[in-house]
Amino acid sequence: MLCVLALLLPALAGSVGGVALSEPTERNCSISPPYVPGTAVDSGLRLRHLRERMLASEISAYIIPGTDAHLSEYIAPRDARVAFMTGFTGSAGTAVVTASKAALWTDSRYWVQAERQMDCNWELQRDASVGSVAAWLISEVPRGGRIGFDPFLFSLKTQEDYGLSLESSNRSLESMPGNLVDQVWKERPPVRPDGLIRLPDSVIQRSWQTKVEQIRNQMTENPYEPTALLLSALDETAWLFNMRGADIPYNPFFYSYTLLTLDEIWLFVHTERVTEELRAYLNASCHGPLCVRLRSYDAVSADLEAYLRGRPGAKVWIGAEYTNYALYEIIKAEDKLMSTSYSPVLTTKAVKDETERRILRDAHVRDAAAVMQLLTWLETAAPNGAETELSASAYVDRCRSKQKDNMGPSFETISASGPNAALAHYSPTEESDRKLTADEMYLVDSGGQYLDGTTDITRTVHWGTPTATQKEAFTRVLMGNIEISRTIFPSGTRGVNMEMLGRRALWEVGLNYGHGTGHGVGNYFGVHEWPVGFQSNNIPFREGMFTSIEPGYYKENDFGIRIEDVAVVVPAHTKYGRNYLTFETVSLVPYDRKLIDASLLSPVQLQWLNDYYETIRRLMGPELDRQGLHEEKRWMLKNTEPFAQSGSSSPRPSSSLGLVAFVAAALFSLAR
Amino acid sequence: MLCVLALLLPALAGSVGGVALSEPTERNCSISPPYVPGTAVDSGLRLRHLRERMLASEISAYIIPGTDAHLSEYIAPRDARVAFMTGFTGSAGTAVVTASKAALWTDSRYWVQAERQMDCNWELQRDASVGSVAAWLISEVPRGGRIGFDPFLFSLKTQEDYGLSLESSNRSLESMPGNLVDQVWKERPPVRPDGLIRLPDSVIQRSWQTKVEQIRNQMTENPYEPTALLLSALDETAWLFNMRGADIPYNPFFYSYTLLTLDEIWLFVHTERVTEELRAYLNASCHGPLCVRLRSYDAVSADLEAYLRGRPGAKVWIGAEYTNYALYEIIKAEDKLMSTSYSPVLTTKAVKDETERRILRDAHVRDAAAVMQLLTWLETAAPNGAETELSASAYVDRCRSKQKDNMGPSFETISASGPNAALAHYSPTEESDRKLTADEMYLVDSGGQYLDGTTDITRTVHWGTPTATQKEAFTRVLMGNIEISRTIFPSGTRGVNMEMLGRRALWEVGLNYGHGTGHGVGNYFGVHEWPVGFQSNNIPFREGMFTSIEPGYYKENDFGIRIEDVAVVVPAHTKYGRNYLTFETVSLVPYDRKLIDASLLSPVQLQWLNDYYETIRRLMGPELDRQGLHEEKRWMLKNTEPFAQSGSSSPRPSSSLGLVAFVAAALFSLAR
Repeated sequence: MLCVLALLLPALAGSVGGVALSEPTERNCSISPPYVPGTAVDSGLRLRHLRERMLASEISAYIIPGTDAHLSEYIAPRDARVAFMTGFTGSAGTAVVTASKAALWTDSRYWVQAERQMDCNWELQRDASVGSVAAWLISEVPRGGRIGFDPFLFSLKTQEDYGLSLESSNRSLESMPGNLVDQVWKERPPVRPDGLIRLPDSVIQRSWQTKVEQIRNQMTENPYEPTALLLSALDETAWLFNMRGADIPYNPFFYSYTLLTLDEIWLFVHTERVTEELRAYLNASCHGPLCVRLRSYDAVSADLEAYLRGRPGAKVWIGAEYTNYALYEIIKAEDKLMSTSYSPVLTTKAVKDETERRILRDAHVRDAAAVMQLLTWLETAAPNGAETELSASAYVDRCRSKQKDNMGPSFETISASGPNAALAHYSPTEESDRKLTADEMYLVDSGGQYLDGTTDITRTVHWGTPTATQKEAFTRVLMGNIEISRTIFPSGTRGVNMEMLGRRALWEVGLNYGHGTGHGVGNYFGVHEWPVGFQSNNIPFREGMFTSIEPGYYKENDFGIRIEDVAVVVPAHTKYGRNYLTFETVSLVPYDRKLIDASLLSPVQLQWLNDYYETIRRLMGPELDRQGLHEEKRWMLKNTEPFAQSGSSSPRPSSSLGLVAFVAAALFSLAR
Repeated sequence: MLCVLALLLPALAGSVGGVALSEPTERNCSISPPYVPGTAVDSGLRLRHLRERMLASEISAYIIPGTDAHLSEYIAPRDARVAFMTGFTGSAGTAVVTASKAALWTDSRYWVQAERQMDCNWELQRDASVGSVAAWLISEVPRGGRIGFDPFLFSLKTQEDYGLSLESSNRSLESMPGNLVDQVWKERPPVRPDGLIRLPDSVIQRSWQTKVEQIRNQMTENPYEPTALLLSALDETAWLFNMRGADIPYNPFFYSYTLLTLDEIWLFVHTERVTEELRAYLNASCHGPLCVRLRSYDAVSADLEAYLRGRPGAKVWIGAEYTNYALYEIIKAEDKLMSTSYSPVLTTKAVKDETERRILRDAHVRDAAAVMQLLTWLETAAPNGAETELSASAYVDRCRSKQKDNMGPSFETISASGPNAALAHYSPTEESDRKLTADEMYLVDSGGQYLDGTTDITRTVHWGTPTATQKEAFTRVLMGNIEISRTIFPSGTRGVNMEMLGRRALWEVGLNYGHGTGHGVGNYFGVHEWPVGFQSNNIPFREGMFTSIEPGYYKENDFGIRIEDVAVVVPAHTKYGRNYLTFETVSLVPYDRKLIDASLLSPVQLQWLNDYYETIRRLMGPELDRQGLHEEKRWMLKNTEPFAQSGSSSPRPSSSLGLVAFVAAALFSLAR
């Protein structure tokens, strides 16, 4: 599943409609009276109540970010403050309210959706940068005005970015405890009382005690001598204790913080959720360096403050990208703070241990079987005209749910036909649902959560006759995928410095795509597992990291192509050097042959493709047999036939040796 | 000429000896008494005097950076404070002195040189990062100690980096006016009294008045509403006024700052150097928005302060990378400062106008003639055994000096044979000078200053029989050069995101290089013209920028390879897109055929090479004729013969078709 690359989007974006309906699906605020579709939310009362609170707090504007106190990418319903205020439910957006205006900022993926979900109280700002929000604030807030924000919902960097943009404007940015939206949100969902589990031993190599020791070693070895480590991202605590939750849809996390010192462990959770069994697992009743002190989730600020006050020489290590400004404000003093972009938990977690590598590969085998079930079924069903994006989406979700250890999808399946696929983050709804036909391309980006791993794969197919442009674009996207996958690089190379390989074949003919090229993925965590990947704030690649590789191409109002695989970073054996790495693809589903123009591929690219197909046969053949998926096996074998090595897909012999044999045979017959 | 890529160097570096001599050329401080070579400087007295000043200033350590008040990469002799204190004359180094210790930090290019030039009062720290200096300071300066620096020699970023590294250490960083080294440097060279010129009209498209208007437009269009622009980098003032100087060897700059407001122009120079003619040229005697107020160079701080005090609402725009901390401290207040990484002068200057593009290409034609003279001459002279690195260096400098509008070399020629070439920044000295022979590779990296442009080119040659490894490495370096040169990319792509193309063919076999892949270059400025290039702090590529492209490979104690060309960013015409760019190489000297293994090159790479050679013939043929360089023309024609498109330079057939023909011929003879 692709992640957004904010910078590129505005340039590439445009408004793309879904299915034509009789009633307009998007609002029109420029007519009188304004037209607001039934899908929009009436925000009048909520805004009035919020403005009353703002007045009482003497602020001219209030910033409402779309994240939670853990700076999560995906959030629980109770943190969907932007959706509550605006009606807009997209996964990225910032809302700002002043006394007379209200505006939402989001990127091009979501402009159509926002126009469908918001009423005319809200302006849509077609931009997602802090700079754009700040410029609007400067124009709307009078000089000397105060701009409020909830410090639990700002990262240090967000606060800094707003600070920099506003600093010479004579407007002040005010950190305000007590979220104003929560005060007016009467029906705000509570924290769910259940859902905490510990992972089974079968998927664990390192016990939580071992992990605690590993992280403490990194603390004692650090020259800045931190005395404590504060973990704020939800996957940090989940990883450390080998526990999972269910607070956020598709993401097996639970609300938590951890304060890890050299001799104590403080776990901040909603303690009523911690069962007796888990208490025993966590050694919650003893005292000592490997006993967990369970503390109330809401006590984190007070306890952090008490720790700093009570311990002279305390220095708290934080990962700046995932620590909220409220906790940072408590530490702040230069001699008490040690900050790196990511905590040692996130950088350690990024490199999978032997067990994690093995079971994550295993999960991809079972996952590929489910995707092959979908593609095999669709090959017959789709041209018959009875299936839609939604029914296909339901089908693949069902196939996955039957696989061993499946815990549901890892994100809402993107099942998109024809022009809908040009909306890169589209997921079908009842209104937008489109019939699948042999006349349009179909893109399916889906993934599963398994106890042993998280998967994420995208395939684009055509059941009829693709156009020349579609074939060329698909092949060039595939070339991008192959060029990244096969490249050899020194250990420690950054993804951002290689990701152009995913675009280069497209660039050659003036095509491009407006999203990132890949993100980390791991063992039953969020589908975008930072800090691994190809973006500028990702960490350098090391052996044992898993990342998606997912170039694409999107033609507005026409079609969308994306080819996404997950790959693991493995050693490369080179002629002269050591410490070189490459990728090994662990997703195991062939690409649509009909869309590949093999004459565009270089011999090296064809070789890579044939090797990959051989791997699919080797790993998936027995698995499909085992699951009794005979039709799927035939489909797999048919679709993994090796390509001729000539650089052409035609049947004539093509490798040097093949050609020699062919000529030799012909000549011998001539000579006889 | 390559620029350093600090991060990669430590990993790749190693101590490499030059010629074996009877006396050790490097100091040995671990024996008693220590051995110090004659090339080292006695630093005892200087250190004692400096420490007296430090004591009086109550500081525990003093940081001596290797730059000047304009953050120049290359400096004038009067700014060579590190060299004065330590004896070390390399172009990159930071010295720190405490009451009992003294240490120099420099990167791997210079470790050998430092060991030859420093006495045993100085430790050599084999690292060049601020982090390393800071760690040393923390270990040497007691808690509570004060660490002094001259704010004119720190950029904002340097100050910030030291601040961050020291902030939680309880040592304070003190900005101290009045450089302590200057106070003990009795023989410090004065500012030279002459050398200021205005450029002839023939090389100018935009008068300085036009440029002032262009920059003022950018100021008024900026939403942050700056009232003034402070120019600190020496090439900023030189560019704005179409003037040049001679204060820094190889760099046609003069000491200067400019404060440009919307209605005034303040030029800070050593006013006694400004001739009557220049005063007239600058409209120095009138008042008005296009009249230049000449102010004393040393008045910049006081005048800047007076400007800020005298004008309510003043806001000064600075380019953070080139503004020193002393001037920043004067502005500092948030509402008075507007900072971008680079000033609008540097970003505007980066894109050459039509005239600049034309004349810079012209300069490369004449420059190529000089380089061809060298290579033609060496092909005969070198194997005879009478020539050395120094004589070759002198030869090419002489050839350039005879070219029209030459103003000398653009940097000290790197002329390096055999193992000396493995030291990437080596320039020959009397002691290190090595004889040129047919048994070793030879690398020459040189460039010229011309009134119309600055050139920079590296060629690596072999006059005998290269080894298989040498050929492979050379060919892969060439492949890197070609892959960058031919790549097509969207306008606005950053060099750092493409530079791996220069390394990829090397990475494939486990080879790499430890320097950057290219830097901007322009019209009679410094040879490293920022902010264009392939490093992470360079700006995105736009049409009309010029950059060097210079991958390399260095085998310790054996040989060094670098292939450097200058290229201009030009539009690329693509099948589907607009606003795509590519490079066009403007250096015009063929590569050593003997070192090219054409069988490694792809058909596309061979095509690029043949097209490039055709361009060389088209542009250089008439030029060599015009200059009467007949032997050089024959050399050029011989070396630009097109390569066979089969992918092999050897006579045996190797492509599919060649092999078929071969087999067919064999079989026909068999059949007969």
